[in-house]
Amino acid sequence: MLFSNLKLDDKKPIYLQIENYIENLILNGLLPQDSKLPSTRELSHILNVSRNTIVSTYDELRSKGLIYSLAGKGTFVNSQKVLKSKDWNVDWNKYENNYSITANNLDIIKTEPKWTPEMISFKSISPDGELFDVEGFKKSFLHVISLESHKLLNYGYAQGYLPLIQYLKKYMMEKGNVTTGKDILITNGFTEAFDLILSAFTKEGDKIICENPTHNTSIKIMKTHNLDILGVDIKENGLDFDMLSKKIEENINSIKFAYITPSYHNPTGRVMTPERRYEFYEILRENNIPIIEDGFVEELLYTSSHIFPISSLDNNNNGVIYIGSFSKILFPGMRIGWIYADKNVISKLESVKRCRNIHTSFLDQAILCDYLKNDSFEKYMKKIKKVYGNKFNFAYECVEKYIPYEYIFGDGGLYLFVKLKNIDTRKLLDECLKRNVMFMPGDLFFVNDNSNECDFNDDRKTTLRLAFSRLTMEQIEEGIKNIADIIRLITS
Amino acid sequence: MLFSNLKLDDKKPIYLQIENYIENLILNGLLPQDSKLPSTRELSHILNVSRNTIVSTYDELRSKGLIYSLAGKGTFVNSQKVLKSKDWNVDWNKYENNYSITANNLDIIKTEPKWTPEMISFKSISPDGELFDVEGFKKSFLHVISLESHKLLNYGYAQGYLPLIQYLKKYMMEKGNVTTGKDILITNGFTEAFDLILSAFTKEGDKIICENPTHNTSIKIMKTHNLDILGVDIKENGLDFDMLSKKIEENINSIKFAYITPSYHNPTGRVMTPERRYEFYEILRENNIPIIEDGFVEELLYTSSHIFPISSLDNNNNGVIYIGSFSKILFPGMRIGWIYADKNVISKLESVKRCRNIHTSFLDQAILCDYLKNDSFEKYMKKIKKVYGNKFNFAYECVEKYIPYEYIFGDGGLYLFVKLKNIDTRKLLDECLKRNVMFMPGDLFFVNDNSNECDFNDDRKTTLRLAFSRLTMEQIEEGIKNIADIIRLITS
Repeated sequence: MLFSNLKLDDKKPIYLQIENYIENLILNGLLPQDSKLPSTRELSHILNVSRNTIVSTYDELRSKGLIYSLAGKGTFVNSQKVLKSKDWNVDWNKYENNYSITANNLDIIKTEPKWTPEMISFKSISPDGELFDVEGFKKSFLHVISLESHKLLNYGYAQGYLPLIQYLKKYMMEKGNVTTGKDILITNGFTEAFDLILSAFTKEGDKIICENPTHNTSIKIMKTHNLDILGVDIKENGLDFDMLSKKIEENINSIKFAYITPSYHNPTGRVMTPERRYEFYEILRENNIPIIEDGFVEELLYTSSHIFPISSLDNNNNGVIYIGSFSKILFPGMRIGWIYADKNVISKLESVKRCRNIHTSFLDQAILCDYLKNDSFEKYMKKIKKVYGNKFNFAYECVEKYIPYEYIFGDGGLYLFVKLKNIDTRKLLDECLKRNVMFMPGDLFFVNDNSNECDFNDDRKTTLRLAFSRLTMEQIEEGIKNIADIIRLITS
Repeated sequence: MLFSNLKLDDKKPIYLQIENYIENLILNGLLPQDSKLPSTRELSHILNVSRNTIVSTYDELRSKGLIYSLAGKGTFVNSQKVLKSKDWNVDWNKYENNYSITANNLDIIKTEPKWTPEMISFKSISPDGELFDVEGFKKSFLHVISLESHKLLNYGYAQGYLPLIQYLKKYMMEKGNVTTGKDILITNGFTEAFDLILSAFTKEGDKIICENPTHNTSIKIMKTHNLDILGVDIKENGLDFDMLSKKIEENINSIKFAYITPSYHNPTGRVMTPERRYEFYEILRENNIPIIEDGFVEELLYTSSHIFPISSLDNNNNGVIYIGSFSKILFPGMRIGWIYADKNVISKLESVKRCRNIHTSFLDQAILCDYLKNDSFEKYMKKIKKVYGNKFNFAYECVEKYIPYEYIFGDGGLYLFVKLKNIDTRKLLDECLKRNVMFMPGDLFFVNDNSNECDFNDDRKTTLRLAFSRLTMEQIEEGIKNIADIIRLITS
């Protein structure tokens, strides 16, 4: 293309014409530094001249320092001595909008201490990868790729891979949900699901109820959408229903959504009883405030057949949007979650999803679907419930034994939430990091951020989340002992 | 959990207490319709009573019609006769915000005619899945899964899978780009990349320059961000630089971005010459308007080593954000693309990406990376360049031979853009669909939508895009002949 613009003139030396042409391209910046030139053979073909002519041309250019050759690699442009295009420095910090500023400011991964191998980290709530059933996963890959590789590797549909949607509909039915009038959208995990819902249905300044504390990623997403967050405290007995009713009354008819995680709530690890789920649903229904239910680690419920999601109370209505995910138990690296809701809600979200990234990886959806239908999934679930159950019990015992706590929250799952006695957990974390122990300080999970002074009555300041899913029993005990030692040091 | 709340009283018949308890749960909606009860054996364990007691309890409940049993499956709740929770009907159409409304209104997939197997569709610009090198792909999967399954299946990093980032940096260098001061973010394809950039750097009402016509998905995304789109016409000679300069002058200092697809522009299939790339870059640089360059099907350029992306002209500056994707040649179902830009830009976008969906599937990134490093990729590229090149030439010939055109645009790639003589292509499409032939009417690609009357001088009304990547030679000829027949019928 570039060289086909060169019209050779019989009256001048051919090699010189080519040399001038290439020299001009370089001088005008059209052949950037280190870009590869065609080989002498190729260029002689393109221009239909003898190869010797091109060899002479390249020799000349080389001697001018405009090109250089690397043995066995080819000939490259050296434009360093050439006038560069003028400086251009866009001030991207000024370009950045408020959404990006919030997303960056609240991106704790950028500021938190880096994990090192010698660290005992109670931070991560990822599943333990060592438990993954890689053989079963491989089988599922080979199975789906042999059945429909061309389909899976080409463009799919925004709503998701149909067999996975069908599987999840059945799965939701087993949790007491109906499928009439409802539908499912596959998303890139919980995070995308929650973001899509807020993107489609909220506006800056809208009010949203949530548990306080709650999942820090959810807080971040609500804040990037500029929502006015109304936190309702979690107390000894669970969500404070009086506070809930009061907040609803104070903001009558102006609350857009309530966001809630009834099973293994993050960070407290608490499970809402069926009775309280019903009560919660009724309060929201009476006030016409749709519920976004975060299914989260619900799959780990030890007696899962008897506790149903809040969405199952909404069967003939359309007020609950349920977000499901296997990421806390299965292959989170694939990023697959789903939204179960009213058909009309799903239809709207489907178009928004298509606008965002067309669809979630069809290959991953197909592998996961095949895997879920397999016996190995049930075996895997039994195994991990046992493993995580044991870790939970052991971690609980260790905290009880070693740590001077005011309360321990946690009904199972992958973490505990502990309130210490008169300890500023930010200061504690600083000291712990020196001894290679890490945890999540409680303040990250609270929605109101009103004071920097440590108030020992303030849960924000004196709580921490201890996640144990990826630690061995030895690490759990050693880590908790270390924290206890440091607490003694600080308070002594 | 549910049953552990039941405190049995020695003074009353045990079976009756359990019966009342379950009955209450059902009546209060806490055990939804068709939910499974524990087996008699399980429940006798949980409550520590004899199994016969539970058998009696279930018999009683069955006779009241509150539960039913399925042989071999278990016992289930029948709450149909029970008072249902009151009706609740959220009006989601009122809840939906403008963003969702725009995304839904511009979602052409929801309104366009459905593809059927007997159809010859010139609509899709997906690669031909039959050409995919499935064996090479399988090998790459097995390779990466044996090396690092636990890592790939667990949570990864928002920026992307490091070996893929490193590969793409080298890849961008081969296209004449530098890596100093630049970085790469992996995205879920082009669509997410473009959406992330607009999400982080634009505000409602910002002005953006783009080619007119341009990619309909890009138009949709710009519109969902409420940008003020300034289209610059593509003429016989390519982008109208006079119009470009005029629009910049008219909107001096108020244009946020210019969006451009220099290689195999969609829908016109044109390739911008190096000289014109340089000229374009200089105009934008002088006016301090950052460029979003859509790499798109650049990979298909038959002489790719000699045409560099506009980003390569920006090496020591920071004014160009380049979006790359293999989706038009390789495995689009996995949704992998990338952004190459200034480090600071990538850092900001990384946090936005984390906010949206944490990261792109690490499994897919690893498979793709392994595949790209393999010999099979080069072989595959040679093969598809030949196949698509042949299809392009043949389609071009067919249009020249059969169709009364005013112009044909297309320098290669996966489609042609044709302007017809005095034919309303929307009306033509209606007729074609009756004969099972489909194409994309030109109006979908134009940014201004000012009249419904057909004006035969208006490119919007009289153009169409013919994509041939997934059609056989026979289908290409038959389809184009059919279109020609219908044109004759309409004009006669």
